Amino acid sequence: MTDYAKFLSPTGRQLTESAIRRMGTVVARDGDLVSFAPGYPDASLFPWDALREISDGLLDGHDEGALQYGPTRGYAPLLEAALHVLESRGIQASTEQLMVTSGSQQGIDLIARVLVSPGDVVLVELPTFTGAIAAFKNMQARLVGVRQEADGISLEHLDEMWKREAQAGRSIKLLYLVPNFQNPTGSLLSLDKRARVLEWAERRDVLIVEDDPYGQLYFEDVATEAETRPMRADDGNGRVLYLSTVSKMLAPGFRVGWMLAPAMLIERFDTAKQSTDLTSGILDQRIVCEALRRGVTDRLAPQLRALYRHKRDVMEQALRRHLGTRLTWPTPKGGFFIWATLPAGWTDTQLLERALRHGVIFVVGSAFHVDGTGHDTIRLSFSAPSPERIEEGVRRLAAAFT
Amino acid sequence: MTDYAKFLSPTGRQLTESAIRRMGTVVARDGDLVSFAPGYPDASLFPWDALREISDGLLDGHDEGALQYGPTRGYAPLLEAALHVLESRGIQASTEQLMVTSGSQQGIDLIARVLVSPGDVVLVELPTFTGAIAAFKNMQARLVGVRQEADGISLEHLDEMWKREAQAGRSIKLLYLVPNFQNPTGSLLSLDKRARVLEWAERRDVLIVEDDPYGQLYFEDVATEAETRPMRADDGNGRVLYLSTVSKMLAPGFRVGWMLAPAMLIERFDTAKQSTDLTSGILDQRIVCEALRRGVTDRLAPQLRALYRHKRDVMEQALRRHLGTRLTWPTPKGGFFIWATLPAGWTDTQLLERALRHGVIFVVGSAFHVDGTGHDTIRLSFSAPSPERIEEGVRRLAAAFT
Repeated sequence: MTDYAKFLSPTGRQLTESAIRRMGTVVARDGDLVSFAPGYPDASLFPWDALREISDGLLDGHDEGALQYGPTRGYAPLLEAALHVLESRGIQASTEQLMVTSGSQQGIDLIARVLVSPGDVVLVELPTFTGAIAAFKNMQARLVGVRQEADGISLEHLDEMWKREAQAGRSIKLLYLVPNFQNPTGSLLSLDKRARVLEWAERRDVLIVEDDPYGQLYFEDVATEAETRPMRADDGNGRVLYLSTVSKMLAPGFRVGWMLAPAMLIERFDTAKQSTDLTSGILDQRIVCEALRRGVTDRLAPQLRALYRHKRDVMEQALRRHLGTRLTWPTPKGGFFIWATLPAGWTDTQLLERALRHGVIFVVGSAFHVDGTGHDTIRLSFSAPSPERIEEGVRRLAAAFT
Repeated sequence: MTDYAKFLSPTGRQLTESAIRRMGTVVARDGDLVSFAPGYPDASLFPWDALREISDGLLDGHDEGALQYGPTRGYAPLLEAALHVLESRGIQASTEQLMVTSGSQQGIDLIARVLVSPGDVVLVELPTFTGAIAAFKNMQARLVGVRQEADGISLEHLDEMWKREAQAGRSIKLLYLVPNFQNPTGSLLSLDKRARVLEWAERRDVLIVEDDPYGQLYFEDVATEAETRPMRADDGNGRVLYLSTVSKMLAPGFRVGWMLAPAMLIERFDTAKQSTDLTSGILDQRIVCEALRRGVTDRLAPQLRALYRHKRDVMEQALRRHLGTRLTWPTPKGGFFIWATLPAGWTDTQLLERALRHGVIFVVGSAFHVDGTGHDTIRLSFSAPSPERIEEGVRRLAAAFT
């Protein structure tokens, strides 16, 4: 029997599994489970007809490029189309600063590989996206959590953590942020704080990774489009690496996202991507490009905002009715998630165990915390289940408490 | 102006660009260039009609799974279909040993990340695939080249190199091989040597990475299917990590490959993939799965063998006619490449410079050598250009010599 453990690299030994991915596996096994776990988009709004028409046109054989290898940087017309999307969000950029990634997860991974040495400090929000935690940890980053307030990251705690790490002689390279409808808290970084974080990054010589998958999913009763303005739009000093994806605005089955960064770094990310997967899926890139060009995504966006806002309402109403005395949460202003705090005496893992027995699942809050805290919190995704299933899931969650 | 260089990790600073990818960029720029550079498959045999029909069925909206997130390990029916392909090639395995990768390049990258620590020795053939060189180098592997003979890797030199590295106290983890119609030499590892390499790996406690994109593309005048039997088929000791892809047998625009490895390692690769791209493209996986199930690939294989054999003939005849006194090469028994040796006094880079001026391009042999040698060799891909363009390209290549 070969002993494989001894062949593992330090990375191979320390690999961090994404708590969300693990939950996805549980859901796939049990059909009746109500899943508030992974942040899957609602498939009822996947634009099947438009996509089938586009795909038909691409697969008629008139252009072999639709199935051939393509440039690592991405399909050029898709890069152009992405620039238009960015422009509509206030971002001026050029194609040398842009590349296609296999979902925004690959963008985070490329940033981690190209910029993070073992022991380098990456500052993250407390809590933050587990996929980012995993990608940075797999490069043996030292993840340092920064507290959040109602309007996003605490500037005071951010600088406090920076000073602590700097005094310890550590190299502090990145601040990873999800300013719009953060995963997992659903919170929105205020415009005032965005400006202050940019100033801070320049003063402290840190790069910002701005991950923006949910920016267009603002809920109009409590947020405006103006409030979602990406930090990259006001980044005069080239401090921001900006990531986005079509996973939430079109469909996640296409692994198509993009990364905007200084041209010198894009060259390095491009080279790193070459040995990672050569190129992102070509047919996927072509389909997404056509969907952007034909306005499929633009027409879809208001429908998505309305749908997810409605689902948020359904979940909040159900939570108030069934769990109003036990759970507390801030109303999400956009995105996919409700971030709830448990009553005293309960932990996330204990509740999850009971919830599973009652046929409902969520992600434990501690999974999003890099400092071992968060056991009094849970993340509930309202994006995928139907309103009826949301009701049913909340009923089951309430039962898990009794 | 922000100084980005100081943010780079050691990996970020040392990134190796794939010579083949670089050539691809040159080709994309100049329309009239004849490209013998990247090993692109011939698009004239992409099965457009079958793929359009499959895609139509998948995008009719009856199954939201076609565009939703899916398991990192891969779409379960695709894993089953891949097992059948493997079985047809003599390999018995189970789904716990298998995962889908975003092309076989991702398989190499995952192996490098999970198994290779900086300074670990990876043994490779001299010459070998540049994508593997890049992936291992990016994990700061020490790449040690092993000479090849007409029937593949030299067992004597292999053990000599192993001893040298072992005596220097280095950890020797992997031997990377392309046994079938190697990239770049087109050579076929003999069945006798396959058995001896397996024995050697067990004795020296080394894992073998068997990369097999071209195994089904044997040319029946000089090779038999039996001679392409994967080493993994006779691997009684669990020494072989086996990679394959549909890039050459269906279309490369789908980034769909698979990796077979001991279950304990597949779990690690799966976790590593989570933070890399979450999942390979879902629609791509579904289309490929259906193409395998419906026998599209099986029907295509004999046509592909006949087409590439014909193109090899065209290129060999043209080379004999125009360059028979200057170039020497072994007849490829399958695959996409002719590996030619230059006449005394010529170098690969010098010839490439002249060839570019004459409107033809290839990959310099030195790019495939990890020891700085190979400047007297070039790789000519006959897979993508039409017979007429092959003729024209060889004429231009001959002109570059004058």
